[in-house]
Amino acid sequence: MSARTALFVPGPTNVPDAVRRAMDIPMEDHRAPDFPDFVLPLLQDLKRVFKTRSGQVFVFPGSGTGGWEAAITNTLSPGDKVLAARFGQFSHLWIDLCQRHGLDVEVIDVAWGEGTPVERFAERLAKDASHAIKAVLVCHNETATGVTSDVAAVRRALDASEHPALLCVDGVSSIASIDFRMDEWAVDLAVAGSQKGFMLPAGLAMVGASPKALEAAKAATSHRCYFDFADMIRTNKDGYFPYTPATTLLRGLRASLDLLEAEGLENVFARHRRLAEGVRKAVAAWGLSLCAAHPRWHSDTVSAVCVPESVDANEIVGLAYRRYGLSLGVGLSKVAGKVFRIGHLGHLNELMVLTALAGSEMAMRDAGLAVAPGSGVAAAQEHFRETATPRARAAAA
Amino acid sequence: MSARTALFVPGPTNVPDAVRRAMDIPMEDHRAPDFPDFVLPLLQDLKRVFKTRSGQVFVFPGSGTGGWEAAITNTLSPGDKVLAARFGQFSHLWIDLCQRHGLDVEVIDVAWGEGTPVERFAERLAKDASHAIKAVLVCHNETATGVTSDVAAVRRALDASEHPALLCVDGVSSIASIDFRMDEWAVDLAVAGSQKGFMLPAGLAMVGASPKALEAAKAATSHRCYFDFADMIRTNKDGYFPYTPATTLLRGLRASLDLLEAEGLENVFARHRRLAEGVRKAVAAWGLSLCAAHPRWHSDTVSAVCVPESVDANEIVGLAYRRYGLSLGVGLSKVAGKVFRIGHLGHLNELMVLTALAGSEMAMRDAGLAVAPGSGVAAAQEHFRETATPRARAAAA
Amino acid sequence: MSARTALFVPGPTNVPDAVRRAMDIPMEDHRAPDFPDFVLPLLQDLKRVFKTRSGQVFVFPGSGTGGWEAAITNTLSPGDKVLAARFGQFSHLWIDLCQRHGLDVEVIDVAWGEGTPVERFAERLAKDASHAIKAVLVCHNETATGVTSDVAAVRRALDASEHPALLCVDGVSSIASIDFRMDEWAVDLAVAGSQKGFMLPAGLAMVGASPKALEAAKAATSHRCYFDFADMIRTNKDGYFPYTPATTLLRGLRASLDLLEAEGLENVFARHRRLAEGVRKAVAAWGLSLCAAHPRWHSDTVSAVCVPESVDANEIVGLAYRRYGLSLGVGLSKVAGKVFRIGHLGHLNELMVLTALAGSEMAMRDAGLAVAPGSGVAAAQEHFRETATPRARAAAA
Amino acid sequence: MSARTALFVPGPTNVPDAVRRAMDIPMEDHRAPDFPDFVLPLLQDLKRVFKTRSGQVFVFPGSGTGGWEAAITNTLSPGDKVLAARFGQFSHLWIDLCQRHGLDVEVIDVAWGEGTPVERFAERLAKDASHAIKAVLVCHNETATGVTSDVAAVRRALDASEHPALLCVDGVSSIASIDFRMDEWAVDLAVAGSQKGFMLPAGLAMVGASPKALEAAKAATSHRCYFDFADMIRTNKDGYFPYTPATTLLRGLRASLDLLEAEGLENVFARHRRLAEGVRKAVAAWGLSLCAAHPRWHSDTVSAVCVPESVDANEIVGLAYRRYGLSLGVGLSKVAGKVFRIGHLGHLNELMVLTALAGSEMAMRDAGLAVAPGSGVAAAQEHFRETATPRARAAAA
Repeated sequence: MSARTALFVPGPTNVPDAVRRAMDIPMEDHRAPDFPDFVLPLLQDLKRVFKTRSGQVFVFPGSGTGGWEAAITNTLSPGDKVLAARFGQFSHLWIDLCQRHGLDVEVIDVAWGEGTPVERFAERLAKDASHAIKAVLVCHNETATGVTSDVAAVRRALDASEHPALLCVDGVSSIASIDFRMDEWAVDLAVAGSQKGFMLPAGLAMVGASPKALEAAKAATSHRCYFDFADMIRTNKDGYFPYTPATTLLRGLRASLDLLEAEGLENVFARHRRLAEGVRKAVAAWGLSLCAAHPRWHSDTVSAVCVPESVDANEIVGLAYRRYGLSLGVGLSKVAGKVFRIGHLGHLNELMVLTALAGSEMAMRDAGLAVAPGSGVAAAQEHFRETATPRARAAAA
Repeated sequence: MSARTALFVPGPTNVPDAVRRAMDIPMEDHRAPDFPDFVLPLLQDLKRVFKTRSGQVFVFPGSGTGGWEAAITNTLSPGDKVLAARFGQFSHLWIDLCQRHGLDVEVIDVAWGEGTPVERFAERLAKDASHAIKAVLVCHNETATGVTSDVAAVRRALDASEHPALLCVDGVSSIASIDFRMDEWAVDLAVAGSQKGFMLPAGLAMVGASPKALEAAKAATSHRCYFDFADMIRTNKDGYFPYTPATTLLRGLRASLDLLEAEGLENVFARHRRLAEGVRKAVAAWGLSLCAAHPRWHSDTVSAVCVPESVDANEIVGLAYRRYGLSLGVGLSKVAGKVFRIGHLGHLNELMVLTALAGSEMAMRDAGLAVAPGSGVAAAQEHFRETATPRARAAAA
Repeated sequence: MSARTALFVPGPTNVPDAVRRAMDIPMEDHRAPDFPDFVLPLLQDLKRVFKTRSGQVFVFPGSGTGGWEAAITNTLSPGDKVLAARFGQFSHLWIDLCQRHGLDVEVIDVAWGEGTPVERFAERLAKDASHAIKAVLVCHNETATGVTSDVAAVRRALDASEHPALLCVDGVSSIASIDFRMDEWAVDLAVAGSQKGFMLPAGLAMVGASPKALEAAKAATSHRCYFDFADMIRTNKDGYFPYTPATTLLRGLRASLDLLEAEGLENVFARHRRLAEGVRKAVAAWGLSLCAAHPRWHSDTVSAVCVPESVDANEIVGLAYRRYGLSLGVGLSKVAGKVFRIGHLGHLNELMVLTALAGSEMAMRDAGLAVAPGSGVAAAQEHFRETATPRARAAAA
Repeated sequence: MSARTALFVPGPTNVPDAVRRAMDIPMEDHRAPDFPDFVLPLLQDLKRVFKTRSGQVFVFPGSGTGGWEAAITNTLSPGDKVLAARFGQFSHLWIDLCQRHGLDVEVIDVAWGEGTPVERFAERLAKDASHAIKAVLVCHNETATGVTSDVAAVRRALDASEHPALLCVDGVSSIASIDFRMDEWAVDLAVAGSQKGFMLPAGLAMVGASPKALEAAKAATSHRCYFDFADMIRTNKDGYFPYTPATTLLRGLRASLDLLEAEGLENVFARHRRLAEGVRKAVAAWGLSLCAAHPRWHSDTVSAVCVPESVDANEIVGLAYRRYGLSLGVGLSKVAGKVFRIGHLGHLNELMVLTALAGSEMAMRDAGLAVAPGSGVAAAQEHFRETATPRARAAAA
């Protein structure tokens, strides 16, 4: 009998008990007359997490990948030019998806460990006087490398050129965990998934669309039906869906939004930052470095830890899983074997982070890495003690 | 405090406790080294429910509509001609989806209440010497009217003309409840959803593809990525998925397959037939008729009951829901207000059917319909008593 | 695969989903500093269900039998004389328990089907000038026969003689379902269990004690420790318990009290009465009679249905269970084989009652009883339709 | 939103997900004809955990305290002399319970931190030529001080004097976690609770009784009914209970026994020992000592850690709970404020122990104790790494 696996992949994340209970329900009729009493406030409250008032957020049964597809097929047409940077597995995959839908993606490759190259985007946009570029893609948080990009800066670059391209953001591993401001940054399309900061099982793709994106949807000729915004707009307004929604996940989303609201979004972000900082202190204490090449790119939801060439990071992940029941993330694609990843997002507190660090230390030592036992734990402990919130201090007084 | 709503819409259906428990789990890493130990047998066993050995079944996070989309975008190209019949809301919607994906659908409209017009299909196929028709769509069980079509007969029509068109079947409300034989009928694409006979919440689209369909996929140029078979084929073979799967639903699917296996698929079909026959006896006892125009079209998973013009069927459904906590299905589109629907599929036994009938009787009387109280219940009771299985009789001896 | 058994024994009763979810929680420390924030309001609110302000309600891990034991061992001493009537299995068992604790029980046997013989109690008490009788036991609702006794009348009998005996009431199958007024009737000890009107699993014994009972506890010499009131009084006042409490059931009790409060206790009683009346209409329509010998004894929580001598009631119960998945109550002891029992308490609505009736009809017919199919269902349906509450009517309008 | 409290009190313990799911079920009829199919093997398998073939194990709705009461009221009579040692809060409470049931307890007080004084017991028994002592009480694992006593040695002492006294053992925090051999040690009464090694919520008292104890029960005159063995014997043999059992906990017990069986009892004991040793290494690394005065008394289920006089142990526990969501055990009675307790029993692995240690370190430092950050964690980590089982090593290879 082994205890429950300790889950520290960067998604799916741990589901709070309250959310789990909210989903453990009998089935219900999604066409019932009182179903809208549930749906309408849900969709409204969801907008707050995207920080949008003017936009609309659509919820599809699907995964984040489905969200990417919804965002571009609703607003672009085959042949449209799109500007994107590739610096990790997930920025790569979105580009791939665009290409498979017939878009003409202009790819800027940058080193894995860096983020969106804002200056190069700015240059490129400035040169695009004919506005051939119809959309700019930004991966807000590259889950493969633990890199957070500066979306606001991309918006500034667009504005500097008065460029009308749609600003499309992959917020799958940022929204609800890292500050994201759809309206303030004039993001046109924002994609999220249920299994990250929303603390739900995988199964919901959420896409925020600005009025400009909705206008673009009217002219876009990409074929679409399952992910069509128009069907959602027509039915959502009355509290229904164009086809059977994933009601258990929607009920869970209600509980998730309630938890986020109760803690306060800004507190949620601060908690992620503080816990992530504990992980970073530990990595430093281990004498290791992050894949993220500069502190300005440090992700508050996932840390990709580089290991010396002498060691296979996959072995660390395997040992952690098999020997200690600790689920860490492997390195993907270009950084396979070179990094292991600690997910630190969603339903998380100090003790959980320390658990991940303690287990990582054992697995690293088992794999032959000479980190000092307890060193990372100690560094994180002291960080957590020094930064305990006044509320926690008061409560504990 | 009202008791749990009695759910008798034709999907989502009641989730067995064992399935519900199987889904109430902590999250897990879908890239874990032992995840394939779970996935590989699951996908294998799922094929048995589709009754295919030569085909492959794909499981997407999505709904049945997503399954329709997957089936056609993977195997057809914009401009391809498709033959389909429209005789209810769901056969209509699939046609609509095809059109939105740029297919050229030749629609044969037949009366709602009838099924796939096999003779007309046969004639049309026979005339299509150039094989312009690339696919034939069949809605195996039209949920809107309670009509089951004869898929085997469509196959015979294709064979009679030696026509190479793909045979695409919507089995959303038939597979796992009504006999469906993918290999024997040489069905090329079979679409199912989790929330019907599989007794799960909505959220999984399942698509069976024959070797011929998989071959067609290589040439089909419809844009696709989220629902792409190729990514699934590449990753499923090792027990993984191209993106985060809906693991809780997959765990539930495991429990569902185990239940279906334990009962035996043929017994599951027989149970559905026997329970449906009880409903039909009740409808007759009420002096009412079914929307299905002929017994050969009687659906064993849903009955659409026609009400006299003097009464609004929607009012019956509303009264049942609000006054007695009974969830029935409304009539959709052309038959709105003219029929109410009793779903009788999935996790169901005699007592549950009687509950639906007893509640329907009250609601019909409340709405002014002069059915005799208890009449339908009595007819069904006697049917159930007379047809109690030998096993039940023995157990009760 | 058979569907969930339909549970219509007179306890355990069906647990509402909200209560079930409230119990599906991680364990917690019952000595935690914030545990009293949960316990103190819980115990306070529980008193409202007993309708007591002056008394105290104790909650023990245990069953109703434990509650009987707590009530008498805390307040009486070996050799004490107790007056009780025996008219069913549960009144019998409480007498037996008293005897095993060394009490001198004066038993008045009355026919099973009758209730507490108030006049004979009154006579006996009037004659007891020396007040040798220390306690009077009343089984408020005899679950074996479906008989509700008049507790208020027993109080009047005591008052008429100015008799100081403690009034001890078994309210296991009445409290929270049938009107019970601890303070108004000056009940000194009131015993309840979790698995009846409180809609919880078995596992909690609840005992209400009046100030007079608590005073008597100081002098009572019966040995006791596990069920000792004094330890509870000492610890409950701060929100704790003398030993590890059954926290999951306490969390469920919180949800149960919230449901009772939301519906309103008087509405709960009215609902039970209305649903019970539906059962009684059905029994009459079947041409059968209740074990309860007079309408004034009709229980609103359980009906014991007499069957003709030609039929074995146990066979009906067995057939219902094995053939249709319907759980009815067998006759116990003296009425074994002569009655079957339908429990109609707790989390229940009209459809659920009709389910029980429909299944009973089939089982009775299977057992050879010539009740007309649908007859009982029809009688209950019409009763439910005629007595639909204005709120239900309005909601359904 | 805080994450789930990390529970490290010495009971209730963490409930495995499989057990939790097994209890999340609809209610059932405990008089159903197939209920014995569940009960009979359950009671049989439970005996294996007590390591008894000749004895019988009774399961009562109740807590461990109820188990104590059952053990002595069934087998002893008021005035009977009983020998017991007091060296912690729980050994104290059992003595208190005996006294309240009229037994004449001869108490040997030893220092808290020591265990059962076997030599003094041996002396006393040797002197008791008249066999006035009817029972000897042994607290196998004193939860208040983290002390495990040597039950086999007490048996040897009894045998050495050929003394017929019953050997009564409180195994509440040992059985299913620490080796306990009812038959081999000729234990006559063994008391366990559900919320410790059985990994269930509180609510079940389990009492093993030897044939000799059952024989004694026939003559014992202590009043009893709720906890009467005889009623259990009469009904258990057919798979039933004398009153409504706590069926959800029984279903959970089935899952718990299955987990224990799957791991293997001896492996369960070895796991507890190894994890406990990790805690002890940590305590040593902190420069602190255990309450248990000698290694032979070290408990493998709970460690009571002594803190210097300058610090209030309660403050550490309070800080851990309020600031970090870590539930530790406070010191009770004589050792209040002097020790804090880490429960390490039940559903537990290395990472969970490290979590408790990491949190304890932070709380100790917050309270002003100068333990080195990470020091205890490091000591335990290295112990766990060095003692990883061959199976774990192989699995991870």
